Amino acid sequence: MNTKIKWLREKLNGLNMQGMIVSNPVNVRYLTGINAEGVLLITRKENYYITDSRYLEEVKSILTIDDEIIVSNVVDINKYDYENFFSFCDNVGFEENYITYATYKKYMERYKANNLEETDGILEKQRMFKDEEEISLIQKACSITDNCFSHLLKFIKIGMTEKQIAYEIEKYFFENGTDGLSFETIVASGKNSSKPHAKTTDKKIEEGDPITIDFGCKYKGYCSDMTRTIFAGFVPEKIKPIYDLVLTNQLQTAKDMKEGMDIRTLFRNVDNDFKLHGYSLVHSLGHGVGLEIHEHPFINQKNDNSLKENMVITNEPGIYLPGEFGVRIEDTSLITKSGCINLTKSDKNYIVVG
Amino acid sequence: MNTKIKWLREKLNGLNMQGMIVSNPVNVRYLTGINAEGVLLITRKENYYITDSRYLEEVKSILTIDDEIIVSNVVDINKYDYENFFSFCDNVGFEENYITYATYKKYMERYKANNLEETDGILEKQRMFKDEEEISLIQKACSITDNCFSHLLKFIKIGMTEKQIAYEIEKYFFENGTDGLSFETIVASGKNSSKPHAKTTDKKIEEGDPITIDFGCKYKGYCSDMTRTIFAGFVPEKIKPIYDLVLTNQLQTAKDMKEGMDIRTLFRNVDNDFKLHGYSLVHSLGHGVGLEIHEHPFINQKNDNSLKENMVITNEPGIYLPGEFGVRIEDTSLITKSGCINLTKSDKNYIVVG
Repeated sequence: MNTKIKWLREKLNGLNMQGMIVSNPVNVRYLTGINAEGVLLITRKENYYITDSRYLEEVKSILTIDDEIIVSNVVDINKYDYENFFSFCDNVGFEENYITYATYKKYMERYKANNLEETDGILEKQRMFKDEEEISLIQKACSITDNCFSHLLKFIKIGMTEKQIAYEIEKYFFENGTDGLSFETIVASGKNSSKPHAKTTDKKIEEGDPITIDFGCKYKGYCSDMTRTIFAGFVPEKIKPIYDLVLTNQLQTAKDMKEGMDIRTLFRNVDNDFKLHGYSLVHSLGHGVGLEIHEHPFINQKNDNSLKENMVITNEPGIYLPGEFGVRIEDTSLITKSGCINLTKSDKNYIVVG
Repeated sequence: MNTKIKWLREKLNGLNMQGMIVSNPVNVRYLTGINAEGVLLITRKENYYITDSRYLEEVKSILTIDDEIIVSNVVDINKYDYENFFSFCDNVGFEENYITYATYKKYMERYKANNLEETDGILEKQRMFKDEEEISLIQKACSITDNCFSHLLKFIKIGMTEKQIAYEIEKYFFENGTDGLSFETIVASGKNSSKPHAKTTDKKIEEGDPITIDFGCKYKGYCSDMTRTIFAGFVPEKIKPIYDLVLTNQLQTAKDMKEGMDIRTLFRNVDNDFKLHGYSLVHSLGHGVGLEIHEHPFINQKNDNSLKENMVITNEPGIYLPGEFGVRIEDTSLITKSGCINLTKSDKNYIVVG
């Protein structure tokens, strides 16, 4: 059996659950490598993956005998099969943060377990800890992102629109072996940069604009995430102190990030320093990155956990002056026992383009 | 108050509900025009939209005083506000097909309604009937899709990869004023066309290949959907009878589609004719199109409703010979009292490219 499913079975055992219904396709992909629509049933004796005719061929081509997963076409599964999967089970886990209320009710009717039990994100929490293969895929996604950024520095010219730049990013990722964007690219210039979650517009880049570019790609399912704020033509004097303050905090956070570091403190350190200067940290300081662009752990003041080895998280402080401008600088970083390794490595000093 | 919210209030009244929590952003957009993350509360006295700082500015710029929607920042809403929204309400509707089981439990704690009641897709069902403005937006999306297809016929050359063609489609939509793709483009050539839901690959187009192109864009939120199966170099004799059978059925379906037509019969007519020739209709015959690419009504044998005026649906029969080839032909069409109007209008006769 594959090691991730073995881990899950042991975990369920410890929670006094006799099985689990895994419905979230990201969790299914994490456990099995399968990238399809369907449901994974961890039952007492066997592991089943139920999908439909669209995916059967591909799913079977991905799995090996060592996976020990029985693949079925949903049209071949009848009422009694469903009832038998979890018969005599007291507690069967389900993903309460993924399945809808309507699906929950359907599962309650379909599977004859005594109780469907919430699993409190066990899989999402386990996904925080990346194994070697996952780290190397994220590394690859980050490296392509760095290369894309180098390309952009030559590409961007005053007079281009934000959308043209965003489109060039997509083209670059398309031509360089990725699965595409890990999220919708943000290119926000001038006043538009003052919105932390700006949408990319048809605004043209003007001399003196800061340009915040927040982007990333997927490589074999795994994401990268990087932001740089660069400048068109020259660096306006009024932006420099804000840029320096954001960068100082980004670098200090990178120094602080390592196994054992308290997450809330990490956030508060930046927020406090921003407040000392009359600003504040209006969004979270970062988030986990993996098969999804936003994963556990979330780096904010509500999180009372600490960082652990092999987490991959972003470090992205930002300051936003409504109607004026904003600065955000972000890396994707791997947590180790003794520190962190930035997987995105592009320059963070003032960069002037155009 | 805007007419869609007024409609919803009357509908809720008839269902003996004193309010509704609208969480699905597509439904919120349908009712209000708001394209953001947040929750719309239809309470006894007022309509509230609760969002966060990222969207406040934009949301306020979209709404007018006539919308009669009070917009709040989520950080300003406390426990007692939540309790007061639905106090003294017996039944408050929620979207059981959208919100997760965990969110349902959170709502139960947060809102002090006596009962949260399933609404059985009232909004999704209302969205089946497009008003004039919605139709004109879908029309525009379809017209851009037709233009893109004309462009492709000049662009596609033998030796190009499927991905190159898919990418050209994306580029076209980007450069022609759309919001982007309405779904991931399918370009499936040669044997790849034998999968009804093929993924676009790096396979090169070869002489004699059928090429199934299934694509669409979004215009101001509204989708288009069209498929054509074209040929590289020449039309192979063995494909002609299949192509003709699919096209005959697509044209016949278009003739049958009008207000009052039984949906199940529409599906069965095609399936029966396919079976007479030794094939069958392995996927649904079509689906509604609007703010989402797949909406009600779903045109399959399980649907015992009939077509109504102002529905916009696809008409997409297909035949697939595993390991050999497939043919699918699809239009997006508007249902009227007396017939249907194809909103995608590209040629459906044999087309040879390359």
